[in-house]
Amino acid sequence: MNRDVLEDLTEAERKALAQCRHAVLGVERPLRLDCGVELGPYRVAYQTYGTLNADKSNAVLICHALTGDQFVAEQHPVTDREGWWESMVGPGKVLDPVRYFIISSNVLGGCMGTTGPLARDPATNQPWNLRFPVVTVGDMVRAQAALLDHLGIPELFCVIGGSMGGMQVLEWAASFPSRVFAAVPIACAARHSAQNIAFHEVGRQAIMADPDWRGGDYRLHDTAPARGLAVARMTAHITYLSELALQRKFGRNLQNRDALGFGFDADFQVESYLRHQGSTFVDRFDANSYLYITRAMDYFDLARGHGGVLANAFKGSPTRFCLMSFTSDWLFPTHESREIVHALNAAAANVSFVEIASDKGHDAFLLDEPEMFRTLTGFLQGAANVRGLA
Amino acid sequence: MNRDVLEDLTEAERKALAQCRHAVLGVERPLRLDCGVELGPYRVAYQTYGTLNADKSNAVLICHALTGDQFVAEQHPVTDREGWWESMVGPGKVLDPVRYFIISSNVLGGCMGTTGPLARDPATNQPWNLRFPVVTVGDMVRAQAALLDHLGIPELFCVIGGSMGGMQVLEWAASFPSRVFAAVPIACAARHSAQNIAFHEVGRQAIMADPDWRGGDYRLHDTAPARGLAVARMTAHITYLSELALQRKFGRNLQNRDALGFGFDADFQVESYLRHQGSTFVDRFDANSYLYITRAMDYFDLARGHGGVLANAFKGSPTRFCLMSFTSDWLFPTHESREIVHALNAAAANVSFVEIASDKGHDAFLLDEPEMFRTLTGFLQGAANVRGLA
Repeated sequence: MNRDVLEDLTEAERKALAQCRHAVLGVERPLRLDCGVELGPYRVAYQTYGTLNADKSNAVLICHALTGDQFVAEQHPVTDREGWWESMVGPGKVLDPVRYFIISSNVLGGCMGTTGPLARDPATNQPWNLRFPVVTVGDMVRAQAALLDHLGIPELFCVIGGSMGGMQVLEWAASFPSRVFAAVPIACAARHSAQNIAFHEVGRQAIMADPDWRGGDYRLHDTAPARGLAVARMTAHITYLSELALQRKFGRNLQNRDALGFGFDADFQVESYLRHQGSTFVDRFDANSYLYITRAMDYFDLARGHGGVLANAFKGSPTRFCLMSFTSDWLFPTHESREIVHALNAAAANVSFVEIASDKGHDAFLLDEPEMFRTLTGFLQGAANVRGLA
Repeated sequence: MNRDVLEDLTEAERKALAQCRHAVLGVERPLRLDCGVELGPYRVAYQTYGTLNADKSNAVLICHALTGDQFVAEQHPVTDREGWWESMVGPGKVLDPVRYFIISSNVLGGCMGTTGPLARDPATNQPWNLRFPVVTVGDMVRAQAALLDHLGIPELFCVIGGSMGGMQVLEWAASFPSRVFAAVPIACAARHSAQNIAFHEVGRQAIMADPDWRGGDYRLHDTAPARGLAVARMTAHITYLSELALQRKFGRNLQNRDALGFGFDADFQVESYLRHQGSTFVDRFDANSYLYITRAMDYFDLARGHGGVLANAFKGSPTRFCLMSFTSDWLFPTHESREIVHALNAAAANVSFVEIASDKGHDAFLLDEPEMFRTLTGFLQGAANVRGLA
């Protein structure tokens, strides 16, 4: 069983799993996915920082965004770059492993060690590829809950994440209210907007238009839709930045030249930057995973499972919420966070909300934003006091 | 000579030229392009509505946007759809052919009859394809000026256009101030922003990543990069609409289904709509033209040729300007128009500016926007009075 789930890894998965922990779950009780499929066994790759205290009250779950993973605060085994949230996690930082037991797992459908389209269907021993069931943010969260069961952790002190990570935080609070003491959804929404679905669809079409995609079976043909995936990443990357950030960072500066080239090479720095973003992304990310995870975000609509009323998702919630958005984030603009705040207020939940002035766009949540750190430090200190954490 | 320039037309060009007029220019005096190439002979396909008056004072030039063309106010010969500015041009409308002699020409680099990458290099009799020189908005305007010379029209009562059409209007006013009585640049900018260059670059990369593009020589292989061009169009189309317009028009409505499909078909109406936009676009537009015209927009930076000071482009301008922008246009936001207004004020030019409240995004300039029509009617009436037009 274990062998079936672990064999046939990509090079990236192999490197990832060598540097983190993993659990094989769903062996006896498969995970019932929203699409109706029973998934099991499945693997969850995760990383931890710090130590669980005696009464298991200091666990913090970090949920990652679309292209993030479990390597939050360490050199990444595939890219060799620093972890994606080193600014937030580490000794002396907001999420300090000395104080908290920090867990971060690669999402279901991912490509950094957790089961996704790269894996084999245990029933047929054939690669899933596009036959992998479409998963939802709810499915991702239920897989994380199963991991916590496996780790013997009944309750999380805090669940935190930005973007799709924030969607998972909301889903956690709605699905497992008694397991979430504090929730921090950052730069997210309770349902994916039409514009965001549109941008994701463009990315998927770029991947599926690449002849090397081969209906999703590219690994069987020893190829990969690298050009399509790069275009998808380039499009998405624009949406992660603000117009002002792009203008300030690049403007109309030329790349390694004094004059316009009158051709289709990368004349402008912004073109060169985007091409680089595209080409480095394909070295670390799987195209089918990209399809599945964008789909999960598109499908996210928390109110839908609660009679179309978002407040119902948080009825009687014991969780303390802290929401944050950024003024220049046009992918998940502040009005999306406000809708969540309104619903939480309507549900009489304990909620604070801060819109942070930043010109860095959606990616601000990954960057050095002192007000985000200050807000979070205060919120967590208050919650820790109430929880009786030293 | 004429034969060389006219042969080897695409089906779309043939239909277009059958329904409009054209001029073969640059035979004796080639057009000196900004890249240094001398282009000639070249063909300009154009359409006219109305009649030039005796003193040639009622000519209006309409400049089209990236994917527009000369068929402003009539059924399009290729798509069979109505003209792209029927809301603005026609009997009883703002631009009335009873009053004005209206001219609209397909831009240099275009694919609706004017010379572009689809044409043959007269020097070699080989298809230009990607060997066609990279043209600029300035080159487009100089080709239009040559057309006016050919038509014997010394001065335009008005030059008007939105988006890239607005860039041409600005270029007209800067390059030929004595030939432009009134100028109406709508929803545009004096230089293409980093974000807009980025979106164009994504579109170009999508086209060039398509193996059917074949380095631009797809016609020689009897193919076309349809999938890449469709992805390019889909990306661009999102930028033409506002988030609110997409949300109101589509929201999260499903397409011909009651429940999520848990797959990668077009579950959502917005996906289906985008796919339709992509697939219909490739039937009417040429991929290489798309590369060239997006490049021309990227290269547009009116201040650059005037010592980096935009006001210098309008020094001593006799032209009356009327600028318009739309509140929800995030491709050419109002602040871009304001920069032009500031420069015109600094140059002591005659300028009025209206920001129109609209939730329709950049495409508002093509749509039924009563305040745009009212503003323009008033402006044109005032200008006509000064000009002594009946």
